[in-house]
Amino acid sequence: MSKLRFSISMSVDGYMAGPGQSREDPLGKRGLELHEWVFKLRSWNEAHGREGGGGDPVDERFAEAWSAGSGAYIMGRNMFGPIRGAWDGAEPWNGWWGDDPPYHTPVFVLTHHAREPVEMEGGTTFHFVTGGIEDALEQARAAAGSKPVSIGGGASTIQQYLRAGLVDEMLLHVVPVLLGGGERLFDDLGGGPEGFECVELVSSAAVTHYTYARK
Amino acid sequence: MSKLRFSISMSVDGYMAGPGQSREDPLGKRGLELHEWVFKLRSWNEAHGREGGGGDPVDERFAEAWSAGSGAYIMGRNMFGPIRGAWDGAEPWNGWWGDDPPYHTPVFVLTHHAREPVEMEGGTTFHFVTGGIEDALEQARAAAGSKPVSIGGGASTIQQYLRAGLVDEMLLHVVPVLLGGGERLFDDLGGGPEGFECVELVSSAAVTHYTYARK
Repeated sequence: MSKLRFSISMSVDGYMAGPGQSREDPLGKRGLELHEWVFKLRSWNEAHGREGGGGDPVDERFAEAWSAGSGAYIMGRNMFGPIRGAWDGAEPWNGWWGDDPPYHTPVFVLTHHAREPVEMEGGTTFHFVTGGIEDALEQARAAAGSKPVSIGGGASTIQQYLRAGLVDEMLLHVVPVLLGGGERLFDDLGGGPEGFECVELVSSAAVTHYTYARK
Repeated sequence: MSKLRFSISMSVDGYMAGPGQSREDPLGKRGLELHEWVFKLRSWNEAHGREGGGGDPVDERFAEAWSAGSGAYIMGRNMFGPIRGAWDGAEPWNGWWGDDPPYHTPVFVLTHHAREPVEMEGGTTFHFVTGGIEDALEQARAAAGSKPVSIGGGASTIQQYLRAGLVDEMLLHVVPVLLGGGERLFDDLGGGPEGFECVELVSSAAVTHYTYARK
């Protein structure tokens, strides 16, 4: 059975998104600073049709392994978009990422409102799952084959899977930014997560990578 | 004027002490795990009359610079001891650390209850300050001479100095432990701390050291 994992950039004060998230500012105030280490990488620039990139080889390894490795994604509705309620508004919302989203796999979006799948360019198809986190995981595993299923976010979706004890692997990329507020990754976990051990701790001058596996 | 700084070991989920702090368990449940990287160091073992120690040279550098570098310490009453109210109980409390505390400098304890200074072995003298954090800082600076003043802890004392904008340098030693609860360092800061920049990020396989200075 394919593993369930997530890979999250986090500020050293614990936030995976800044305060004041909105349609204009989906990562919240200064939230983009969490991801600057990725924007410097060769692999990221190549994937976006640009040349160059001068990130650290350590950081490159994590980004490459991640982008090549996922057979399907799961995300919460808040991460998919700012729209609330039913999907049949005047304006169709197909995510933040334009016509060719960076997933290139099936993506299972947790929602209370049914919607037909939406096929995007580049291999990304959004499926809308109303049956809860275990249903989404089952569908994602069926789609992922032998590859891992990755939780894209946001914090509350990750926390739901952690509380249910369903996560096999966590990758934390801690950047030395202090955001002072926003969405905490490690919150509402009832004293957990439990049962993980750190199997690798490695750092560049820009970001520290912590890898956790189930004991 | 001597700098005000602190050096704190923190879990990757943000805690500088575990849940359930008590007289029997001053660091809280599993809080000792935050400091295991120190117990492995040669300098720590030598300071405690033991031979050996096989810590990473990176970790050794931070521990040595710290222990040699402070001219005075400030700590909160909760860090000094579990006793509440006036000091004149049947049992005199002189800290958790035995006759020869590891400070070897004047230590200024924030309290609401006046008490005469207590001179310990090895150069540590506990002074009890009832005039608040700025008064304690002024007295500590006068005692420290050209050396830095260090805030020993706990979290609420550090947070008071951060909110007042009085901290010049922060050293965070983030260990890959997940405590799941306890005392958070970055809490109650009203959206801060602001005005710091990370001047060094370096890691061993056991702990990541983040150094922040005022911009």
